Formats: sequence, structure tokens, C-alpha cells
Amino acid sequence: MAKKNAFYAQSGGVTAVINASACGVIETARKHKDKIGKVYAGRNGIIGALTEELIDTTKESARAIASLRHTPSGAFGSCRYKLKSLEANKREYERLIEVFKAHNIGYFFYNGGGDSADTCYKVSQLSEKLGYPVQAIHVPKTVDNDLPITDCCPGFGSVAKYIAVSTLEASFDVASMAKTSTKVFVVEVMGRHAGWIAAAGGLVEDHGIPVVILFPEIEFDQKKFLAKVDAMVKKHGYCSVVVSEGCHYPDGKFLAEQGTRDAFGHAQLGGAAPVVANMIKEAHGYKFHWAVADYLQRAARHIASKTDVDQAYALGKSAVELAIKGQNAVMPTVDRVSDKPYKWKIGVAPLSKVANVEKFMPRDFITADGFGITAKCRTYLTPLIKGEDYPPFKDGLPQYVRLKNVAVPKKLASFKI
Amino acid sequence: MAKKNAFYAQSGGVTAVINASACGVIETARKHKDKIGKVYAGRNGIIGALTEELIDTTKESARAIASLRHTPSGAFGSCRYKLKSLEANKREYERLIEVFKAHNIGYFFYNGGGDSADTCYKVSQLSEKLGYPVQAIHVPKTVDNDLPITDCCPGFGSVAKYIAVSTLEASFDVASMAKTSTKVFVVEVMGRHAGWIAAAGGLVEDHGIPVVILFPEIEFDQKKFLAKVDAMVKKHGYCSVVVSEGCHYPDGKFLAEQGTRDAFGHAQLGGAAPVVANMIKEAHGYKFHWAVADYLQRAARHIASKTDVDQAYALGKSAVELAIKGQNAVMPTVDRVSDKPYKWKIGVAPLSKVANVEKFMPRDFITADGFGITAKCRTYLTPLIKGEDYPPFKDGLPQYVRLKNVAVPKKLASFKI
Repeated sequence: MAKKNAFYAQSGGVTAVINASACGVIETARKHKDKIGKVYAGRNGIIGALTEELIDTTKESARAIASLRHTPSGAFGSCRYKLKSLEANKREYERLIEVFKAHNIGYFFYNGGGDSADTCYKVSQLSEKLGYPVQAIHVPKTVDNDLPITDCCPGFGSVAKYIAVSTLEASFDVASMAKTSTKVFVVEVMGRHAGWIAAAGGLVEDHGIPVVILFPEIEFDQKKFLAKVDAMVKKHGYCSVVVSEGCHYPDGKFLAEQGTRDAFGHAQLGGAAPVVANMIKEAHGYKFHWAVADYLQRAARHIASKTDVDQAYALGKSAVELAIKGQNAVMPTVDRVSDKPYKWKIGVAPLSKVANVEKFMPRDFITADGFGITAKCRTYLTPLIKGEDYPPFKDGLPQYVRLKNVAVPKKLASFKI
Repeated sequence: MAKKNAFYAQSGGVTAVINASACGVIETARKHKDKIGKVYAGRNGIIGALTEELIDTTKESARAIASLRHTPSGAFGSCRYKLKSLEANKREYERLIEVFKAHNIGYFFYNGGGDSADTCYKVSQLSEKLGYPVQAIHVPKTVDNDLPITDCCPGFGSVAKYIAVSTLEASFDVASMAKTSTKVFVVEVMGRHAGWIAAAGGLVEDHGIPVVILFPEIEFDQKKFLAKVDAMVKKHGYCSVVVSEGCHYPDGKFLAEQGTRDAFGHAQLGGAAPVVANMIKEAHGYKFHWAVADYLQRAARHIASKTDVDQAYALGKSAVELAIKGQNAVMPTVDRVSDKPYKWKIGVAPLSKVANVEKFMPRDFITADGFGITAKCRTYLTPLIKGEDYPPFKDGLPQYVRLKNVAVPKKLASFKI
């Protein structure tokens, strides 16, 4: 059988370590040149496959590829694009096959979250359903940590570390000012459906910080929340609040959608943090500060978790090894072997069980009152933020790599998405 | 003459490195026990002196004091409290003398910004005006970098580094997503009057990032700004915007005060970032994300600038050395000796020339169009963010010290502020 090339693409919101997975895929493929030909990357994700905008990663030096390990964001561009079902949009799948055939692609590595796992699963069925032989392996990635089966998802540990470190630092700040000034600090974090990232803020309790967490899993009870904050401030002199962007009222309305209007009547400028901060001010009169971390949290490679970087790389590497072993429709996973000392190994999950399944915080990871994390959650989270893995710096700034991203010459007619 | 004790207090908003100055003061005083007795710290700043709430720093181990060097926030508590003039509130000055006398205090080290320099200057006059011998030395600190004479202010370099690193990382993120999703990222930074912090965002241009800066020094011109952003997005596919909280319209109205109302009609929830982001969306339809860094930026000791930490420590050390040399009413300064290689030394400025003077960005540090920084500004800023000085970590989090803060027994009747 002729040696096949590989296609690799990044999907959905990028992270501090998705390029570490790319590094794992490319470096491992380069070590197996007898089995895998070139690695082509999709420019801007799967869209690059559909439009035949492929990037020839063989044009990048070993050093540039190695630098991906410490570079945040998606080096080849990403996109939010979910393939419909084969029945609903056969045209797209036929186009994929056309592109794969034209460039002799036999391996499909897709690096993303839940939606991407679904797309990857659909591609893995091309062989059976449309008679084109392709092995599709999903490389997990999502700051939301909501993929099933795997113990955790690359990208999450680093965001968790960023949120824990930032909450700790800002809380120290507020503690200094609380006597005569700011008494409450509110930070808004990502997580529309699952509260994993917000939970990481709870780790600062180990450092004696009074903190209240607002999870998307727990319906917001304003009265209970305000009483909790007040009790914290009365006891400790100050309090930090970590609010998930997905925190909502019992009727499903997000806190951030409080009907805020600008001078022109346009809806909702702010996020959940200013809403919560003003609510506290209104009820108790406490001076507040608030922050919205947004992209800063998921891009913060400078404070990435070493555990996370190692796992991101290992999963990319394993994806290629699984492909070489002839596997299809699978996703390498992180399997936790032990908590203390933390040990993990790579496992394998069938994509049929991964696609479209969301993993939420277990209720016993959240305290009974709904505002904190339990010892069980702490045991789960702590190893995931462990270890530092600083990028190299020059003149005060991290040296992140920008690839040449040389285009593979097109062979086909253009395709409209 | 009997050996006198020293009083040290932290004032105003705290920073990532104000404790490094405290470390410099205390460690240096401990080396000169023949000249300086105990160092008492004010609990919550100058208020601690007025209320006789003094902290006995001799109760802290050498290790704990050394750890201040890598701990953000104000270890003894800070406050926003400006002494009125001697004429307007003689009672407070008499109280200070009463407390100083009771605790044999002859040295006053005040660690703060412009307002604090003014307070420190007033205290330095006690000897002359009220006959009490005290040497008052100001230790500069302010993230705003707006003190005169000194080349830069401790606290600024670390915020500048945080903003430059964060803008770089988030810009890499946006660049990955821009093809099909977010095209504009807006981050709001501190600086009500001076644009030094915002300017630091401009350093990412060296890394090829298209960035637009909104300074408080430049009156906001919405039409020009929107055209600039549009041109950047059309050219590069995306754009980052760094907006200073102090950015305002020609009539002085802050961008953040756009008349934003919540559902109950309460004024202004959000900051400048969401206002700017929505403005761009409105005009050009670009998908955006925005962040407000707030306390995260000034507390971010994990990504502090080594230059900044070194200078913060050196200024604390020098303050004590100046006191030992018999100086009064002065502030040690950072004097820039050369740009490349960056060299600096400690100088001395009379407090009479520091108090109540604000240093703004020179116009030639800002590009002609008002949206960027010049080569001259770059030359000034780059060395200030240079070098990393990571705190020690344990279990994924920085090991910041919390002092015992043992109270000195009170000797006087209570005093109402």
C-alpha cells in the first residue's frame, strides 16, 4: 500500500496548549516517515480541508515545530464549523473525499472539543459509508473540560492554573485595601455550561482566601448569594467572587443578560462580573472591583500548567501512534492512575461514545450550599494545575513562534462552503 | 543620641512589587541595628500611625521578610488617606508626633505615589514646624508611573509586562479565530490620567500584532478610531485594541460613562472595553471579545518584571541608607544611565519637587495619529519589562507569604480619624 499523507486541523476556541498537541502530532509523524507521508494542516481548521487550503508542515524547521509546544493559540488557524450529517449535507463529505484523494490523505487528525469529536466521528465513517479509506483520530482539546471518558482535557489545566493564580493574586490585593477601600473583588471566567473553570478559583481557599463561586450547574439564588458574601466580608474583612459566564437564574436567563442597556437602548454591554458586583454594592454598599478575563485566560501560555502541556503533547503523539496501529474512530484519553502522587497514562476511547456527550461537574464536587468546591474536587483539580512550563523570553516578552504556513498548491476547482 | 525606631507604611493602591520595597527597607534596617532600632509598620498604612495600630516587624523571621520580595499586595495593609495641610488639620500631625514619641520613632518611610509623596513631605516638616525631629523618606510606588524626576516607578514595569504579555497572547488567539469568528479584541487597562500602562500594549507591534491604543492623553475621536480599526482589520484580518480606563471625549466625559443603565436604571455597569467593543460592532459588524484586567494586572506577581522587582527592592534599601546618612524630605529615584545596554542607578530627589506633580506621557512617545507608540517610547519601555522573576510555586500555586503582623502594645488613648 502506498504511503498516505495526514491531515491535521485545529477546531473551535483555541487554547494555551493546542499547539503543543500539534507539536506532538507533527514531531511523531516525522519520526515515522516510513508510515506517514507529509502532514498537511488545514488553514483555519476544517474549512481548509473543504476549500483545499492546505498548509505544508514539511516546510517548517524542526525548531519551529518544537516551538509550537510553548506557543499559545492555533498556529494554523481555527474555526467554528460543524459538519452536518451525511444525509443533510452529503456534498461536504464528497468534497472532503475529493480533497483527500487529490492529496493522498489517509489520516485525519482533528484537534477539538465536543462538536469536533462529532465531526471527526462522521469523517471516520467515510470509509464505510462512502467507500473512501480514511482513519480519523480525534485529539481532545477544550478549556471547558467537558469531554467524557478522558479524565481531563488539554487546555483546561492551564486555564484553571491561570484562574487560580489570578484569583489568589487579586485576593491578596483586596485584602490589603479592604480596611478603607475595596472589599469585594469579582472575576468572571469562561464556562457557558460546565463550571470546571470557575471551580479552579476555589483552590485559593487552601491559601486562606474567602471565596464564593457561582457555577452554571447551580441555579442562581440572589438572596442566598448576597447573604453568603456579606457573611464572608463580616468574617474576613473582604471576599472574592468567581462567577462563571454561564451562571443563570432558575428560568435559564444568564446573569449577564440583566437587561442592561446603553444610552442608545442597545442590549447588554457588560458581562456577569459587573452585574454581580453592582448587585453586592446595591445590597451591602461594599466597594468593589471586577475583572473579566475572557481570552486572557485561555491564551495565557506564560502561566500554563506543566501537567497540561505534557498531556497535550502526549495526546497528539498518541493520536499518530494509534493511526499507525491502524485504529479509526477513536480518541486518545488521559486516564488517571492515582491522585497522590498524581499518575496518568494514555488510554483510548471510541468516538461513538465521545461525540455530543457533555461532562458536567459532579454534584459532589460542589459544596452543599452551592458556593464552593469540596475536598473531592480539590483532589481532582490540584494535579492538573501542577508544574510550571515557562516559554522562553526575549526583551521581556515570550518568544512565540509564527509559522511560515506555506500553502500546498491546489489541484481542484474551488468549492463554496 | 538614643537609637530611634522606624515607621514604615504602604499607601494607595498596592502593586506586585511594593512588598519588595518593604523587604528592602526591613532587611536594610536589620543590617544597621546600631543606627536604627525596630521597624514598625503601619497597619493599613498611615491610618495605623494615627490609630497607633503598629505592627512589630521584628517578630517576623528573616525568611518571611525575604519572601516579601516575591509576594504581591501590601503585606501590612494599605489605605487611601491623604493628610490635609498642617493648617487645616493640625490635630492629625500632633497625633502623629504623639505616636512617634510614644514609640521612639525617628524615621518615617512612606511607600506610595503622588498623594503619598505629599503626605511624606508634610511629615518631613514636623521637625521644623512642630519641633519634633523626624526624618521622612518617600519610597516611590505607583503602577501609573506618573511620579516626576524618577525615570520610572516601581509597580509600573510589572503591570507593563503583564499588559504586553497578555495583549500578545490574546492577539495570537484572535489571529487564530479571525477567519470565521472574533476579529477584534479589546482589553481595558488602568491609568486614569496617564497612558503609560496602555502604552505597554504597543510593545506587541514588535511581534507583528496590529494594535490600536487609546490613551487618556489623546481626546477620543470616534470617527478616526473606527476608521483606524477598520483599516487594521482589512489589512491584517484582525486587530487588538488597548483602551485606558481614562480615555475620554473632548468634553472630558470618560468612554466608560456612556450613560449605560441596567434594567433598574442604575448608571454604568461596564467599563470602557465593552463600550469600545460595541462601538466597533455597531459600525463594522466585526465579532469581538473584550477583557477588563483590573486588579489582575497590578497583582500579577507571577509575571513581574525582574527590572521592576530589583528597582523596588533597591529603592527600599536606599531609603534606609539615606535616612542613616541623615537625609530628610527626599525620595530615592531610579536614574537611567543608558538605554542599550540598559543601566540605571539610584539618585535622590527633594520631596518638595515630587509632591503633587504628575508626569504624563510626552507627546513624542505617541504616534502622530494618536493611536500608537513611537520608537522613543519603545526604547523607554522595553528595559522596564525585561527579565522574569518567578515566585516559588507549590502544588501549582505561587507561595506568597502572609506575615504574622503582631501588634505593638498600645500606649496611648484611642484616636478618632
